[in-house]
Amino acid sequence: MKIGIIGLGLIGGSLALDLKALGHRVWGTSRRPATVQAALAMGAIDEGITHLATIPPDTDLIVICTPIERIVPCLGEMVDYLPAPTIVTDVGSVKAPIVTAGQKLWHRFIGSHPMAGNANSGITAAQRGLFIDRPCAVVGQPEEEIAQIIGALWRSVGMEVYYCEATEHDRAVAWISHLPVMVSASLNLACKEESSDRVQALAANLASSGFADTSRVGGGNPELGRMMAQLNRTALLNALAHYQRVLSNLQHTIEVGAWEDLETMLKEAQSLRQIYIKSC
Amino acid sequence: MKIGIIGLGLIGGSLALDLKALGHRVWGTSRRPATVQAALAMGAIDEGITHLATIPPDTDLIVICTPIERIVPCLGEMVDYLPAPTIVTDVGSVKAPIVTAGQKLWHRFIGSHPMAGNANSGITAAQRGLFIDRPCAVVGQPEEEIAQIIGALWRSVGMEVYYCEATEHDRAVAWISHLPVMVSASLNLACKEESSDRVQALAANLASSGFADTSRVGGGNPELGRMMAQLNRTALLNALAHYQRVLSNLQHTIEVGAWEDLETMLKEAQSLRQIYIKSC
Repeated sequence: MKIGIIGLGLIGGSLALDLKALGHRVWGTSRRPATVQAALAMGAIDEGITHLATIPPDTDLIVICTPIERIVPCLGEMVDYLPAPTIVTDVGSVKAPIVTAGQKLWHRFIGSHPMAGNANSGITAAQRGLFIDRPCAVVGQPEEEIAQIIGALWRSVGMEVYYCEATEHDRAVAWISHLPVMVSASLNLACKEESSDRVQALAANLASSGFADTSRVGGGNPELGRMMAQLNRTALLNALAHYQRVLSNLQHTIEVGAWEDLETMLKEAQSLRQIYIKSC
Repeated sequence: MKIGIIGLGLIGGSLALDLKALGHRVWGTSRRPATVQAALAMGAIDEGITHLATIPPDTDLIVICTPIERIVPCLGEMVDYLPAPTIVTDVGSVKAPIVTAGQKLWHRFIGSHPMAGNANSGITAAQRGLFIDRPCAVVGQPEEEIAQIIGALWRSVGMEVYYCEATEHDRAVAWISHLPVMVSASLNLACKEESSDRVQALAANLASSGFADTSRVGGGNPELGRMMAQLNRTALLNALAHYQRVLSNLQHTIEVGAWEDLETMLKEAQSLRQIYIKSC
């Protein structure tokens, strides 16, 4: 197939590398010409294009890998130049607003959310095999054939594919991705409420792997955190409301010293985690 | 020196291995004879003792590495048999109740909290070098000489030593260790509040490294979580109250759609984390 990648960061660059290795012809574009040059130099793409008006007419498939707020505008800019049979998908971490707008703009649009990545970003972080054994949601219901082709695309780079509705996806990621960001960010923010400088310095010195893990996603990209909340507001607020109730309940058991109840809750937390992380 | 290790789990066993390698003579004991046999077989200890009445009279130093609720009872059981010059310390993760009771029971008792460990437990998980570059709090004010000897002990196995008061220690670990457990356990518990089985199954399938990290300490040993809360109740409740306020504030910015404010908070969370985890 001839495949276009728009946005050559960690995800776009890594996908391009894998698709090239699978024998596809891959073109790419980025807002920054230097990024396109870097992608060409590292062999991630066969061809760089500088304007969406020059999309190769034999392109079978385009994957939009830009930052989330650029996905719909980017599709809007390219529809006039898209060959009619071209399938378009994206990699955004919220799906309802993107799939709704995307399918209005282009009849052969379907959403994707490959759950892969690491702490790095940019084309220089791109690597082969980033997607292996990671889950990918394929979202929205255009023609069955399109869903099959996009599912096969993600499977070809090693992903486990789950088909779902956009609202189901957004509710699911509110729990396991967006809620953790807010919970973890609040942990980072709460620690500065300690009134003694001596204790605060000691806390920083004693902070260990447990703190590092729990605080990690809350110390991530603030723009991305904001966009997640903005685009997935309803599902995130629902998750936060439930979370607040659970935390208050746990706090209450400590206040009243109901230690058996606390241990029962912590045992349940332990069992539940085994279910959620079986795929991690 | 002749050093005794009481409780031969991950911490006690690993400490014994390191101390033996440094040339000390190490004896050990455990409630389970099979554990003592295993420690002898793997060369972690030179000698096993089966009853505290048989503590070798030339013992310079004893480290109590039992589960936290056993530390004070264990010291109480051994005081009648302790040679007068012997220094005793422990490795419990809460210090005020232990140091207060410990110093009443034994004039040469001082608290320690080596912040080391991994997901494993038991003598079979014991390993050389577990403590390297990890922080250790040395807590309480007996004679200066005792504090120096215990500080040197932990430094000899590679730790960074911080001297502090028991209440300072307990407030510090409430923020960076006990609060994260409750925050993370609540995340695991909250996810089951999703009403749709389909969405819950999808969430479990899509859960990725971000969820795994944030949920990890909340999926840990329930008995230990309960003991932390029970022994460090006041400091933990203080941290939880601040945490609840911070989270409510963040939730409010999402409710009213104050996206710039949310991004500012997430930026602050990002900067704060860099301070806390510099030692991780």
